[in-house]
Amino acid sequence: MRISERARRLQWSPIRKLIPYANRAKEEGVKVYHLNIGQPDIKTPPEVLLALKEFKAEIISYGPSQGIRELREAIAKYMGKYGYEVEPDEVVISNGGSEALLFVFSIVADDGDEIIVPEPFYTNYNGIAQILGINLVPVTTRAEEGFHLPPMEEFEKVFSERTRAVLLCTPNNPTGTVLREDEMRRVVDFVKEKGIFLITDEVYREFTFDGRKHTGALKFKDAWDHIIVVDSVSKRFSLCGARIGNIISKNREIITEAIKFAQARLCPPTVEQHLALAAYNLPMEYFDTVREEYQRRRDVVWNALSGREGIVLEKPEGAFYTVVKLPVDDSEAFSKWLLTDYRNKGETLMVAPAPGFYASPDKGKDEVRIAYVLETEKLERAMEMLLDALEKYPGAQCD
Amino acid sequence: MRISERARRLQWSPIRKLIPYANRAKEEGVKVYHLNIGQPDIKTPPEVLLALKEFKAEIISYGPSQGIRELREAIAKYMGKYGYEVEPDEVVISNGGSEALLFVFSIVADDGDEIIVPEPFYTNYNGIAQILGINLVPVTTRAEEGFHLPPMEEFEKVFSERTRAVLLCTPNNPTGTVLREDEMRRVVDFVKEKGIFLITDEVYREFTFDGRKHTGALKFKDAWDHIIVVDSVSKRFSLCGARIGNIISKNREIITEAIKFAQARLCPPTVEQHLALAAYNLPMEYFDTVREEYQRRRDVVWNALSGREGIVLEKPEGAFYTVVKLPVDDSEAFSKWLLTDYRNKGETLMVAPAPGFYASPDKGKDEVRIAYVLETEKLERAMEMLLDALEKYPGAQCD
Repeated sequence: MRISERARRLQWSPIRKLIPYANRAKEEGVKVYHLNIGQPDIKTPPEVLLALKEFKAEIISYGPSQGIRELREAIAKYMGKYGYEVEPDEVVISNGGSEALLFVFSIVADDGDEIIVPEPFYTNYNGIAQILGINLVPVTTRAEEGFHLPPMEEFEKVFSERTRAVLLCTPNNPTGTVLREDEMRRVVDFVKEKGIFLITDEVYREFTFDGRKHTGALKFKDAWDHIIVVDSVSKRFSLCGARIGNIISKNREIITEAIKFAQARLCPPTVEQHLALAAYNLPMEYFDTVREEYQRRRDVVWNALSGREGIVLEKPEGAFYTVVKLPVDDSEAFSKWLLTDYRNKGETLMVAPAPGFYASPDKGKDEVRIAYVLETEKLERAMEMLLDALEKYPGAQCD
Repeated sequence: MRISERARRLQWSPIRKLIPYANRAKEEGVKVYHLNIGQPDIKTPPEVLLALKEFKAEIISYGPSQGIRELREAIAKYMGKYGYEVEPDEVVISNGGSEALLFVFSIVADDGDEIIVPEPFYTNYNGIAQILGINLVPVTTRAEEGFHLPPMEEFEKVFSERTRAVLLCTPNNPTGTVLREDEMRRVVDFVKEKGIFLITDEVYREFTFDGRKHTGALKFKDAWDHIIVVDSVSKRFSLCGARIGNIISKNREIITEAIKFAQARLCPPTVEQHLALAAYNLPMEYFDTVREEYQRRRDVVWNALSGREGIVLEKPEGAFYTVVKLPVDDSEAFSKWLLTDYRNKGETLMVAPAPGFYASPDKGKDEVRIAYVLETEKLERAMEMLLDALEKYPGAQCD
């Protein structure tokens, strides 16, 4: 029997390749510090867990395809607190940010169409694009520039008649970069001029450091028709397993189409929508606590790695990731070596090699993504090991 | 900005068209008996609701993409009780049956490929096929034959070099037909001969009446490599809102590919997987109670409609649906008229016009689907109204 081309072109997550080595290390009794995944150790807010216990229904029944009204209202209100005018009817609830991306990519692009996205970028964009036969066209950002956007000429260069959208993620996974308002403005002007969409992945909205303000796409009212925001409760409320995301657009045609896609899968999970509702009803002060914790962790990474010879790292600005350039020949080999060979008092660490975050071949070969999802003490220990490992790694780069 | 062809070809659910009329009737104070949807009024088992209250976790975190192991083990065990040998590794948990279908269609067929499916069929097959650019090629079944499968020549006639699979749903939504073992055998032989897949939607597995036994595809061990079973907790445990489905295949390539798709959306909802786990741990006697209730309801529909002049209905065999041929000119007009004009002591009913369940044009124009998802007393009242409405309907068919 024949497996589809669609399935064959879908790639495994590049991080996945390393999992067997991590498992083997654990079987040997080695403790592995996971800096490779975006699963925070921050606890789900107790108010949300309480909502779970208090969920009352005799039948866990289908909800509306667009998502329950109360949740859409709560999201609209939450967005309002940032100054974004959003109506509950402009929100579509999805099965996680992943499904939001699936719907949005489906709506804006056909097989063979293109979406421009700054690289390195979140690997799952690839998966969704591959399922739909959409080409992600990269514009490269650089560690030396803190992964901020290159001049718009770089976007112009890759723009083609098949380009349907630009996709930005801010604060960024994997780089931790928070796009400045002027950068966003330039991209907004670009999509307006080209008559294409701007998709923004804003799932890390609250995680911005050093007093930095997040600029969401909806700030640009002159481009509302172009803008589609993808969001999720996963990181914001440590609710990764709830699989509740959403799409927001002031373009009613986009919302109508999204509801059509939503209808094709009936509805998002009912119980978890109620958890998300409790989460969005939290006071905004909740975010301060979480932001401060992530900033402390960012500081641990920054203090450990900045100014070290051979390491290139601008101060991470947000989210809980950073991509760092290391003095290694091949970051995949280095990441694997950490798991197979490097031992430090019976411990090691796992990082994500950066090539998986690039669409361009041969990029990121000396870079890894560090997710600072561990509490500071563990993170300090992991950084200590990383520096020690770099000294001992036989495949170190010699300049 | 350009909306994709993919989005434009995706159709609204045909039942949806009638919702504004139902809402208007309700606004006028009319009570509407909903026989149009597959949302049962059977309560979610208390054991499952208890599992919700008892769910313990400090962090609602990502689970495995394939689904939590305990749930896959419980499903394998449950399948074992029916004599199907299933390993936990042969199960992939999905966001409802809808996502299971999305993955399976994606894996077996590319844009322009074909899947043969007996019509009338579940409308959401259309949505998923349209998203992926797959053509559902119908083989027509008939009310007069209780919607059992036609001779295999009909399958041969529509088979082409683009045919990748046959899709069967048993017990069937919308017809209520339970395929006999000999029918299944013929289709199994067909897919073996053609070297294509057999996808079976077995979400109504337990709902078979009059002592009828369900024949699942996995019974045919000689064709295991060809078989992909799609399943869901939605109807089985009155857990429609949980959005937990699954894919089962003895073909490890299919499972590997399904995990790849599963990984592209990270994981299914964590809390709801635990509810599903509690549900699959229920004793098999649970199904007896539910089956008996649905059979009582089936009897209400059957006793009311069978033998009536102009009505064609074979005794429904399973699920909780039936497609019935009525003496009307146009079932869409009739269904609309019920909502806009027909009133019986301030009440009316809503049914689903059958054309939406056919891929062939002009089929089902004198048929409606009745979902017997209401308790017997309400159902009796609804049947009384249906018969009364048929007498009063101005668009009745005159032979």
